[in-house]
Amino acid sequence: MTAETPTRSKRRRRRRGREDGPPPAPAINFKRSIPLYEMAPAEAVERIHLSTLDLLERSGIEFHSAPALETWRKAGAEVEGERVRIPRELLLEQVALAPEQFVQRARNPANSVTIGLDQVAFSPNYGSPFVRDLSGERRYARLGDFEDLARLAQMTPSCNHAGGVLCEPMDVPIPKRHLDMTHALMRLTDKPFMGSVTAGERAQDCVDMCRILFGADFVERNTVIMGLVNCNSPLVWDDTMLAAVRAYTEAGQAMIVSPFCMQGASAPITTAGAMVQINAEALAAVAYMQLLRPGTPAIYGIAPSTVSMLSGAPMYGAAEAMFLTFLGNQLARRYGVPTRAQGMRTTAKLADAQAGYESVQSMWPAVMAGGHFHTHTFGWLESGLSACLAKFVMDGDQATVFLRLMAGVTVDDETLAMDAFEEVGPGGQYLGCANTLRHYRDAFFIPPTSFIDTYEQWQEEGAADTLQRATEIARQRLAAHEPPPLDAGTADALAEFVARRKAELPDSNF
Amino acid sequence: MTAETPTRSKRRRRRRGREDGPPPAPAINFKRSIPLYEMAPAEAVERIHLSTLDLLERSGIEFHSAPALETWRKAGAEVEGERVRIPRELLLEQVALAPEQFVQRARNPANSVTIGLDQVAFSPNYGSPFVRDLSGERRYARLGDFEDLARLAQMTPSCNHAGGVLCEPMDVPIPKRHLDMTHALMRLTDKPFMGSVTAGERAQDCVDMCRILFGADFVERNTVIMGLVNCNSPLVWDDTMLAAVRAYTEAGQAMIVSPFCMQGASAPITTAGAMVQINAEALAAVAYMQLLRPGTPAIYGIAPSTVSMLSGAPMYGAAEAMFLTFLGNQLARRYGVPTRAQGMRTTAKLADAQAGYESVQSMWPAVMAGGHFHTHTFGWLESGLSACLAKFVMDGDQATVFLRLMAGVTVDDETLAMDAFEEVGPGGQYLGCANTLRHYRDAFFIPPTSFIDTYEQWQEEGAADTLQRATEIARQRLAAHEPPPLDAGTADALAEFVARRKAELPDSNF
Repeated sequence: MTAETPTRSKRRRRRRGREDGPPPAPAINFKRSIPLYEMAPAEAVERIHLSTLDLLERSGIEFHSAPALETWRKAGAEVEGERVRIPRELLLEQVALAPEQFVQRARNPANSVTIGLDQVAFSPNYGSPFVRDLSGERRYARLGDFEDLARLAQMTPSCNHAGGVLCEPMDVPIPKRHLDMTHALMRLTDKPFMGSVTAGERAQDCVDMCRILFGADFVERNTVIMGLVNCNSPLVWDDTMLAAVRAYTEAGQAMIVSPFCMQGASAPITTAGAMVQINAEALAAVAYMQLLRPGTPAIYGIAPSTVSMLSGAPMYGAAEAMFLTFLGNQLARRYGVPTRAQGMRTTAKLADAQAGYESVQSMWPAVMAGGHFHTHTFGWLESGLSACLAKFVMDGDQATVFLRLMAGVTVDDETLAMDAFEEVGPGGQYLGCANTLRHYRDAFFIPPTSFIDTYEQWQEEGAADTLQRATEIARQRLAAHEPPPLDAGTADALAEFVARRKAELPDSNF
Repeated sequence: MTAETPTRSKRRRRRRGREDGPPPAPAINFKRSIPLYEMAPAEAVERIHLSTLDLLERSGIEFHSAPALETWRKAGAEVEGERVRIPRELLLEQVALAPEQFVQRARNPANSVTIGLDQVAFSPNYGSPFVRDLSGERRYARLGDFEDLARLAQMTPSCNHAGGVLCEPMDVPIPKRHLDMTHALMRLTDKPFMGSVTAGERAQDCVDMCRILFGADFVERNTVIMGLVNCNSPLVWDDTMLAAVRAYTEAGQAMIVSPFCMQGASAPITTAGAMVQINAEALAAVAYMQLLRPGTPAIYGIAPSTVSMLSGAPMYGAAEAMFLTFLGNQLARRYGVPTRAQGMRTTAKLADAQAGYESVQSMWPAVMAGGHFHTHTFGWLESGLSACLAKFVMDGDQATVFLRLMAGVTVDDETLAMDAFEEVGPGGQYLGCANTLRHYRDAFFIPPTSFIDTYEQWQEEGAADTLQRATEIARQRLAAHEPPPLDAGTADALAEFVARRKAELPDSNF
């Protein structure tokens, strides 16, 4: 039970003075101890699997990249123009080389994350050109917003991965953005992070910066950065994305390969068909990574949306996307590859009730299905167009609820509480009994963004809605943030690298 | 895809004129076709089961009612004062008489609901003394509000059970409320409904009104009404509740027997212990009903909340309540008794983001766990203190999402869409392909309360939040409501009964 709502912090100020520092990190375990939910019967999963193999073997998939086509040709695939037809044995033999689980190192070793099997990562919003700032304004994102989002990632206990493109810093020329973003992630957080994929040389810069931060030897032996590439769905892996894949993979770094599934537009409208396509796109990329460097960590991306048949607008929180999340995780388990899941996504323009409903509708299937790397878990709004700082905090609370759910329940002599029944008896109450006194401290998590006291107290304290409370908490967290200590020599070397590369690179807008 | 947001209705008016009538009922099936989620291993369920039997047999439970004590004594339980110690064989043998599934008849036969096994009911908010009305005001509820909530129940396609105390009509004296409420449910809806339990004679009035509506013979042979009684937890069934149980049970009508579990206050703080108590309270009441009339439909109530250890305030959407929902459904399945689940509950004071988050956090476990009768699915706010008309509509949309989830996914030749891959190919798009044209009409459900189009459209249309959109839709639904046809003789007889009983009963406030 943290104490961060405006009121509670007032109370707390009286008790403990104004400077509270960061919220006490609840003992959060990013481990799944509850059973997986298998939505579809094994036969259905098998049919999708076999249809995928047929599709890749007979019809094929396109790789718009000469070096990739060469790699496939050498490996024994049938290459015709940019079309690659992949024999099923080749595909499955390569996919089997991807690790089931891997560790991404953080510069603070205590913050390294394990991804795969029963270990998960919760990571922020990714890729938004706009922000909803703490004044409530919606505007183009700036580097200052990116830095604030990085600070929130650092200060949010249920966020164990700082993410990558927390928003697009539109005030920085495109060719230089990756430098400022990566630099901010390295300075303002000591959690694991992601790098750029918008060009091969930008990806390379990110890897080079990691060599400064971690040391080149360490980077050679460990996963210290991760990229996220989207398929140009349907069934095209384009040159830019493949150049990024090569830069990360050849350095032994991790990559999320993510089909861009908008059911009815970039993928079949029927769920089983959309799943075949997602599976084909993800497996082809996982296999390609293994051809480049066997054993490289790959994450199978599942981030589906449906599309309005009236307007073409994407939607989140629909049942069909849930089915894809369930099926995709069942398939990825069959192949032994960790998954990317979709986080708390919504089409809502504001952090209002729609945002709350849809975000949780989006997250539950991912948690039940056994998703591993949860992108967009914090702060996503407007189908990804905006990063909302207040929603980052709200989503942080809900992520804690999910982590507590994933921790499962213990049934043993102590928790069965037979002594409490003896002590309290029919008609009594448990507030002061011995069992309660032993357990109350960490019995329940009260989300700081939720108001749970009476209506009268709520009115007295200004009748704030969740958005107002979360905005205030975000302000507190940003004020309390301090950059985690970084060796001065490393800091200087990073700053020099960034300055040099920024001088070399153009100020173009592409 | 309905078209009910303010904007869309504007568009629609142009196309189809002002009078739209009720929203087209989507083909909704209240059937579960997806697997159950078994959170706890069988051994854990067994330990809770055995601990429950121990508790009821050794320590016992209280029935504060002379006729109930007499019934238990005759059945072979050990009765000492008001304490009843129930031998495990007696308990289990009685519980086994409760049906696994039953039908509650509606006056419109097409609206009868089946409850239990793979069939579910979604039912509105129950018991709130306050409302949030469509002007946004929060005030004591009145009979007019009750009637509006009944109209919304009738007009909401994902609501297949009209519920009972939709709010407390505070402008009607307590001894007469049940007459006006039951009368409103009978007039304004033709869906199944619930009756009063606040006194034995009030419960009897409700049953008598059903005899007028359905015919006495029909009532004798069918379940036409249901009550909801709460245990005076811990481990006390009080006189008032038991009198209602007797009135319904002796008439062969259904009853939800619901432990009132606030973890840490009225139940042990540890989840396994709270589960033992819920199980003991529910099973004792189910068994008692079977002693009164074997085979009477009973519903095992699971509606847990946790409690703030700072203020004693109840909370919804916590992981611990989720575990109780999962465990409780596993136990009830073991006994073959349908369950009551908790619906879309929240502590939020407004239908804001907190309300959205917590409502879905509350509903998912109930759906995954296999809950059957989902109370409080529509309109609940403020830990149940307020019924919110706008949230009724929002929750209605989310209930549709849950029903679509429960319908599951089909994997077959048609949905695998291999023809679409042929037709579209890499780099194409699916919007106009044959597979899409065959499926787009009912491919996705777009919640009318969700805004999914662009930010610019949203601004142009007034930048409404979900609450504003839902308020407008609620107004439209209320305006479109017409009382379902009722035979004039029956209507007169009901009105006479209500008038006579109201004349006989006092205007007291208890």
